[in-house]
Amino acid sequence: MADKSRLSLNQITTSSWSVREAVEACARQGVSSIALWRHKIQEAGLDACVRNVNDAQLHVSSVCRGGMFPAPTEADRKKNIEDNFRAADEAAALHADSLVMVVAARQMVSEGLGVLVPYARQLGVRIGLEPLHPMYAADRSVLSTIGQALQLASPYGTNEVGIILDTFHIWWDPQVAELIAQSAGRIYGFHVSDWLVPLPDVLLGRGLMGDGVIDNRKLRLLVEQAGYMGPIEVEIFNRDLWDSDPNEVLKQVIDRFEKFV
Amino acid sequence: MADKSRLSLNQITTSSWSVREAVEACARQGVSSIALWRHKIQEAGLDACVRNVNDAQLHVSSVCRGGMFPAPTEADRKKNIEDNFRAADEAAALHADSLVMVVAARQMVSEGLGVLVPYARQLGVRIGLEPLHPMYAADRSVLSTIGQALQLASPYGTNEVGIILDTFHIWWDPQVAELIAQSAGRIYGFHVSDWLVPLPDVLLGRGLMGDGVIDNRKLRLLVEQAGYMGPIEVEIFNRDLWDSDPNEVLKQVIDRFEKFV
Repeated sequence: MADKSRLSLNQITTSSWSVREAVEACARQGVSSIALWRHKIQEAGLDACVRNVNDAQLHVSSVCRGGMFPAPTEADRKKNIEDNFRAADEAAALHADSLVMVVAARQMVSEGLGVLVPYARQLGVRIGLEPLHPMYAADRSVLSTIGQALQLASPYGTNEVGIILDTFHIWWDPQVAELIAQSAGRIYGFHVSDWLVPLPDVLLGRGLMGDGVIDNRKLRLLVEQAGYMGPIEVEIFNRDLWDSDPNEVLKQVIDRFEKFV
Repeated sequence: MADKSRLSLNQITTSSWSVREAVEACARQGVSSIALWRHKIQEAGLDACVRNVNDAQLHVSSVCRGGMFPAPTEADRKKNIEDNFRAADEAAALHADSLVMVVAARQMVSEGLGVLVPYARQLGVRIGLEPLHPMYAADRSVLSTIGQALQLASPYGTNEVGIILDTFHIWWDPQVAELIAQSAGRIYGFHVSDWLVPLPDVLLGRGLMGDGVIDNRKLRLLVEQAGYMGPIEVEIFNRDLWDSDPNEVLKQVIDRFEKFV
């Protein structure tokens, strides 16, 4: 059974809450880590978020998400890089374990990461690359496998660029066990949720652990064998959950975490 | 440009047509190959289908699809095997290039394929294993990559069990070029369609070639380099197409085939 002390609420799971509401609910329900999204940080203001998190003595497992989008003009490209610098600033201010990046274009390899890593290094911020399910290969990510993410991280130090393993994205891979083992030393984060059958929606079809086909416990044990013992984020994109009372959602998250992770 | 003589209409693309209607339309519009689905063969009766195809001098590129579903009782398992024997019979009667199998459960490896291959061999029917996109890994196929399909085929002769490459299922794979090259000698079929962005539906989201992100031409050239020069099936699951006049759909299929494959 996964220890509840490792549970981290990825705030997208309770997307109707502000940062402050999510932080206070975690404190109230005994969840010790949280992952924050940048649009929510912006709504609340970074300083207020830092204060909320510190007051509640919460640990921030990640800031979601950076991304280096190629742009038609030099000015736009600069703006994108600036924006990722701000994401690194936010991760630093919140003492987040890592800044999660979804890599939407190959240009990022040479252009973006090469510029962002030195900046993030100065701030002590680690960049976590998250491979997404192949179903998102057309429009959301050029990283569809753990192998690709490892290759992209390989030029950098193990303390600079690593990977984020999300069971929703990786469970199907016939080589998932070997690839997790190969990720040892570079695993910066671990996310859990479930794959519903039939999948109700391409984007919002994730379920609570236990409602689908993913063996989250087996994957958690593999990730632990590869040396990762940090927070385990519960990150669920699901319209029905989003329309429910987030307090109830958080209760269910804790319950399912203890039963299925 | 792909030669129109290699175009094969997978009849699911014009799903409102009976076998006879689809066969006659192909003859009328100069399409020389067709792929037939078993539920359509059953509706028309096998003998009538054989007559239709022979009268129109059409070539049958495949029969879709067999599959070995595990069953709770011995009697049900037997029934499933019998059903696959009938699928092989149909493929033989229609002189199809192969019987396409979607492998929904691992038991099929030992139980099903071991029994079916000897039977199919007697009939001169080849079994084509089709890996499906990882998005279908939960409920439709245990074969999500070309690598897995090749491994499953490897105990059998190259003329007994091979693979069916469908661009919708394989395009995202970072190793697709190497895997196609490794498939040389076992490629029994090649299917084209397109991946629409955003994907409108998990099951019915395929588009006509040219409407999405798949480079069907590049993949066709790779498949040719690996030695496959047979029919190229156009197989499109799409609600809007199904609700359109199939004559118009077939015209568009031919046009897009010549422009984008």
